[in-house]
Amino acid sequence: MTHTQKAAEVPALFTLTTGPVNCYPEVLSALGKPVLYDYDPAFMALYERVMKKLGKALRAPDVPIVLQGEPVLGLEAAAHSLVAPDDKVLNLASGVYGAGYGEWLKPRAESFHEIRTSYNDAIDPKAVEAFLAQNPDTAVVAICHHDTPSGTINPIQEIGQIVQKHGALYVVDSVSAWAGVEVDIEACCIDVLVTGPNKCLGCPPALSILTVSEKAWAKMEANPTAPRASILSILDWKDAWKASEGFPFTPSVSEIYGLEAGVDRYLEEGPEAVWARHAKTAEAMRAGVKAMELDLWAAREEIASPTCTTIKLPEGVDETELRNKMKEQYGVVISSGRAETFNKLVRVGHMGPTAYPLYSILALTALGGALSEIMNKPMDIGAAVAAAEAVIRG
Amino acid sequence: MTHTQKAAEVPALFTLTTGPVNCYPEVLSALGKPVLYDYDPAFMALYERVMKKLGKALRAPDVPIVLQGEPVLGLEAAAHSLVAPDDKVLNLASGVYGAGYGEWLKPRAESFHEIRTSYNDAIDPKAVEAFLAQNPDTAVVAICHHDTPSGTINPIQEIGQIVQKHGALYVVDSVSAWAGVEVDIEACCIDVLVTGPNKCLGCPPALSILTVSEKAWAKMEANPTAPRASILSILDWKDAWKASEGFPFTPSVSEIYGLEAGVDRYLEEGPEAVWARHAKTAEAMRAGVKAMELDLWAAREEIASPTCTTIKLPEGVDETELRNKMKEQYGVVISSGRAETFNKLVRVGHMGPTAYPLYSILALTALGGALSEIMNKPMDIGAAVAAAEAVIRG
Amino acid sequence: MTHTQKAAEVPALFTLTTGPVNCYPEVLSALGKPVLYDYDPAFMALYERVMKKLGKALRAPDVPIVLQGEPVLGLEAAAHSLVAPDDKVLNLASGVYGAGYGEWLKPRAESFHEIRTSYNDAIDPKAVEAFLAQNPDTAVVAICHHDTPSGTINPIQEIGQIVQKHGALYVVDSVSAWAGVEVDIEACCIDVLVTGPNKCLGCPPALSILTVSEKAWAKMEANPTAPRASILSILDWKDAWKASEGFPFTPSVSEIYGLEAGVDRYLEEGPEAVWARHAKTAEAMRAGVKAMELDLWAAREEIASPTCTTIKLPEGVDETELRNKMKEQYGVVISSGRAETFNKLVRVGHMGPTAYPLYSILALTALGGALSEIMNKPMDIGAAVAAAEAVIRG
Amino acid sequence: MTHTQKAAEVPALFTLTTGPVNCYPEVLSALGKPVLYDYDPAFMALYERVMKKLGKALRAPDVPIVLQGEPVLGLEAAAHSLVAPDDKVLNLASGVYGAGYGEWLKPRAESFHEIRTSYNDAIDPKAVEAFLAQNPDTAVVAICHHDTPSGTINPIQEIGQIVQKHGALYVVDSVSAWAGVEVDIEACCIDVLVTGPNKCLGCPPALSILTVSEKAWAKMEANPTAPRASILSILDWKDAWKASEGFPFTPSVSEIYGLEAGVDRYLEEGPEAVWARHAKTAEAMRAGVKAMELDLWAAREEIASPTCTTIKLPEGVDETELRNKMKEQYGVVISSGRAETFNKLVRVGHMGPTAYPLYSILALTALGGALSEIMNKPMDIGAAVAAAEAVIRG
Repeated sequence: MTHTQKAAEVPALFTLTTGPVNCYPEVLSALGKPVLYDYDPAFMALYERVMKKLGKALRAPDVPIVLQGEPVLGLEAAAHSLVAPDDKVLNLASGVYGAGYGEWLKPRAESFHEIRTSYNDAIDPKAVEAFLAQNPDTAVVAICHHDTPSGTINPIQEIGQIVQKHGALYVVDSVSAWAGVEVDIEACCIDVLVTGPNKCLGCPPALSILTVSEKAWAKMEANPTAPRASILSILDWKDAWKASEGFPFTPSVSEIYGLEAGVDRYLEEGPEAVWARHAKTAEAMRAGVKAMELDLWAAREEIASPTCTTIKLPEGVDETELRNKMKEQYGVVISSGRAETFNKLVRVGHMGPTAYPLYSILALTALGGALSEIMNKPMDIGAAVAAAEAVIRG
Repeated sequence: MTHTQKAAEVPALFTLTTGPVNCYPEVLSALGKPVLYDYDPAFMALYERVMKKLGKALRAPDVPIVLQGEPVLGLEAAAHSLVAPDDKVLNLASGVYGAGYGEWLKPRAESFHEIRTSYNDAIDPKAVEAFLAQNPDTAVVAICHHDTPSGTINPIQEIGQIVQKHGALYVVDSVSAWAGVEVDIEACCIDVLVTGPNKCLGCPPALSILTVSEKAWAKMEANPTAPRASILSILDWKDAWKASEGFPFTPSVSEIYGLEAGVDRYLEEGPEAVWARHAKTAEAMRAGVKAMELDLWAAREEIASPTCTTIKLPEGVDETELRNKMKEQYGVVISSGRAETFNKLVRVGHMGPTAYPLYSILALTALGGALSEIMNKPMDIGAAVAAAEAVIRG
Repeated sequence: MTHTQKAAEVPALFTLTTGPVNCYPEVLSALGKPVLYDYDPAFMALYERVMKKLGKALRAPDVPIVLQGEPVLGLEAAAHSLVAPDDKVLNLASGVYGAGYGEWLKPRAESFHEIRTSYNDAIDPKAVEAFLAQNPDTAVVAICHHDTPSGTINPIQEIGQIVQKHGALYVVDSVSAWAGVEVDIEACCIDVLVTGPNKCLGCPPALSILTVSEKAWAKMEANPTAPRASILSILDWKDAWKASEGFPFTPSVSEIYGLEAGVDRYLEEGPEAVWARHAKTAEAMRAGVKAMELDLWAAREEIASPTCTTIKLPEGVDETELRNKMKEQYGVVISSGRAETFNKLVRVGHMGPTAYPLYSILALTALGGALSEIMNKPMDIGAAVAAAEAVIRG
Repeated sequence: MTHTQKAAEVPALFTLTTGPVNCYPEVLSALGKPVLYDYDPAFMALYERVMKKLGKALRAPDVPIVLQGEPVLGLEAAAHSLVAPDDKVLNLASGVYGAGYGEWLKPRAESFHEIRTSYNDAIDPKAVEAFLAQNPDTAVVAICHHDTPSGTINPIQEIGQIVQKHGALYVVDSVSAWAGVEVDIEACCIDVLVTGPNKCLGCPPALSILTVSEKAWAKMEANPTAPRASILSILDWKDAWKASEGFPFTPSVSEIYGLEAGVDRYLEEGPEAVWARHAKTAEAMRAGVKAMELDLWAAREEIASPTCTTIKLPEGVDETELRNKMKEQYGVVISSGRAETFNKLVRVGHMGPTAYPLYSILALTALGGALSEIMNKPMDIGAAVAAAEAVIRG
């Protein structure tokens, strides 16, 4: 029996991944509510109510859009909807997801440009400024806020202000950061924010959340290649939030119930309090990692995400063996890297229901224990936990 | 306060629509299970198990594909994946959904053809035979099994055998019939069946189910315009059911839990028993409708769907007023028509948890009562119920 | 295979019994919330909040008491707690439950007296007046508000005012009426009201609800035989509702969650609205029963309970055969009689989630159909449904 | 604002108490299933099935009895049912619960005797042997297996064999040990085992579970003071498990659903595996406690319960302050002492869903952190966690 087989038989006790994460209990309860007909006026009223509350949670000027598929749908839809055949597009890639987004932008644009950094670093706003100064006709700039496979955060506000100054549209993928850190849509000058409920909001994966500025609506409406009558259409859903309008197709009713519960919890707890516990959990985790003499993946601690801690794999350690051992022996499931970061790092998510500082203790213990066994060399788990606990106690 | 406003405030007691329908209790319970990480080996094993059980429920030769969006995604994806730029395509349209499917086929094909009937009728296999005899190079034939906005059933087996004889690929939309009536994939020679769990399987709307024949896989793989690395890709998901493979993107974990519960229930109850109660419910409903001297929409009773009864709106009756009154006064929600059938008929679904004969009594009482009031003319509810009950008692 | 065996294998579609009834969806959702430690201050605060809301629902002057067992516990506990060895006690018995209560009172009292009526009738207040005039030293008078096995209602307000005038304590069992009909504790001069959440409040069976007047507290405290440190103790729980106090033993945490959801729903819908739909459902049911030429059990329609309709079994019909046939053929489960009323009547509950008028249609159809078959003589189901529907339409 | 007020507002993240504990997810899901009528043949069949599975989980020779209230009901009922007015009774008291049981035995027996030890110790079988040798007419011997307020285990097998040899009935309270440690009913010669689903089985508190030997049934049946027609009656429920019999009163339907889910999980995981993880969790916890230089309450480690670790409060530490700080700062809720052990110790439960070794890490970190702050003296949390982790890794 291989490690993977054994890990498949052991129930996960603690899912400390970068998403899907387990949901808040309120969300799990809400998912089981009776399913209503989407054209039942009661559901239409509920949908409007949820969208408005979601707008409040987003602190968005307008009612947001929900697309009926997990955030890759929102991301792909945004690329299809915004990029017109005569557009010059700039993609900012500091990691696997940022770079991947280029694959959707490129075939739709007239010219496609990219600023890249190494995948443990963040985009330098100066490079954006320089590009836009030279390319004032750039129509769309895209960035990934938190490039999850690296666990690093880009300076979306600084960059956003530059983008706005140059008149381009600004698309931000904040799927795995929003609701765990502040995203000030107006200060960041975001035209299209794509996020989802399945990370820091503590809901299941099945929906995309988008905010769309007036400028972005105008661009989509003018774009002849923007999808219409398609799952990829954002335009179709523009007014669907209104109780008086129909839906382009059946919304995912149960997921909308879950979304409402997640948004309610977020607003009741208070966004600032939620962000603070995300930050503290990550801070405790990083303190423990360093105390155990492991290396953070992020080039600088200030760009390490509050919603995910990324740890370099020690020389010679296989990530699958490590993660399977953590699961089998401790019941802890964490995330692997992806693509270029695969087998170079592991990732511990701090998202929604797992963004409580004590979870860092669990992750550190399981990580330290499993590494000790694999490397046949004792990690200082005691030091790690003590360092994390010191952060928690503050 | 308008009728719609009042109806929005009244909770629906009985959702007797053509979908979404409420779920089986087992499904509602399953939706609230803890969300696992999709790359947790335990979830990967679960996903494989569910796909295999689903294959058993479909009586499909191969493991089916689940796409992560309600069946419109499966339908759009099938059109994109199968139709190559040099294809001649035949669409069979006996209703709003069948005709609508042409909108996805047409722009992708070299030549697009359509056989239409009036929207209360079914496609004549002889017309298909005639077309294919004259157009032996037809690559794809598409049909809607149960055109829900009309409540009518097409003869998919007879037509399928003709299509196969002529060597075309056969795409069947059985979203609102499968699991409520028999769909024999092999006898019907279906290459791509598109269905969903949110109708007769009693699950929420959020997933598409597809079966794909070897011939259909080959066609997609050879098709340069078949989506890849897209929400619309079927190819991306070909091997995703295997526990050893990754997912193209995050599956809708909670919905997969619900799907398993729905499939388990279907298999435990026994497909033949499930189909029988769908048929009996519809039969009782039709008996009652006729006894109340209302007209069925279907041109002939033998093409009336076992999963939906469609009733012509009496002269002068507004469908919104009727449905709102049924909701306010009786707590019964039924479906309206769509597009060309809107305001010409109303529809009572018999799907999954509502495909029990006694629900016909509720629908008849509410329909009769509301019509009596709107038309200011007493409908014979007693006769309707007595006729339906006679069918139930057998 | 016997009827009972077959009925055991058929899932109940509609539980139209006199309790347990199925719960409101909100209650079912609440039952699955994470279980907290009873001494977790968060649970203690929750418990106080629930008790206060329950008091509001009861319109009780003081915070009510919840005992941790279904209402038989509350009833037995009240008898043990109130009746002292030197008490003269009067029991008012108009049915199986009222008479049964005497079995708990009798062994604890010095002298036990009873006023009985036939089991399809109600207690005559004049008889109570006469007894108390002759027995001014009577300490406790007990009555069953709605004697469920008969489906009849006693005039608790008229009698309560007589009891109060004579200075006795007044114990009212309103388990199956409260929350379905008005119970005005002050106008009825009730000292101890015993009820439960598992009937008209739409919660599961597992808790007793009691209101206790100051006079009743004083009597219990003075009673040397009142249970203490026992599951039967009411005194132990006097202050347990306060977040600052402990519990005598562990409360049924999940059931308390369910109770909160039931109370919230009751208060949100509005007690008057809830009572009205109970009354209307029963009225429709009775109209249908009479139209089908069956006999109500209640001697006079004005004493027929709004929460339960009791129908005399036609000559020669076996109640088990009838109920099993209703279940097997229609999926409808109703209640049998109990003890003296067993096999003389059947009962259809109108309680909480089933107290919506349309349920009467289901019950009438299933009852009429099953009787037609058993008696081999057609019942006029059409007339029954038409009569009930006329009541619904108003 | 007091500590208690703040703790009331903070949600518990980890309930690591000695019960109620949170439930397994399967149990939480099961609680929300539709409530059936207790006399629905489908429920009667379900009840029989659950009781038989429970018997299998208990490895009991006969079908067990479930009483409809949390285990204090079972305990009180056993005392009332077994002890006849002419009985000589021996109570074995090594803690608060064992001693408390005497309060129910004493008033019912002719003569009541007790063997006591200090509350951090276990009963010496030799003392039992000596008593019974001198008192061969002893009718009933009662013992608490795991005296939860002390966290200590009594040698129930050794004592049971002595009791049997002397012909007395042997009543064992294993509420907080069964399903977490092996209880071999036959080897321990237990006549009445009282336990519950709300500790190591991971269900909510609301039911008692009892096994009753033939000898014990005979004693109850012969006992004129054994309760009948009472919530306290065991006799009433003797045959209630049979699908063909009625219930003495309404069982707690939802809790029975939860019980089935808990039993299913226990049997699927395998009792031996469940016991092993309870033992390992406690072992890790104790290793950590000692490494932090705190004292275990138990006089000897071999009598420390595998389901609960009890830690002496350091000089000058107030238990309420400690527990509130653990909750506020770390989200961890643990149990206090009770009565004589109150404010002398705190208790960490290892029961069912929390009997996984990694929970010891959480408890140690929170305990160490809170004590460091309260005592203003750093506890060596690192050493504690390292010691516990070493046990986990094995």
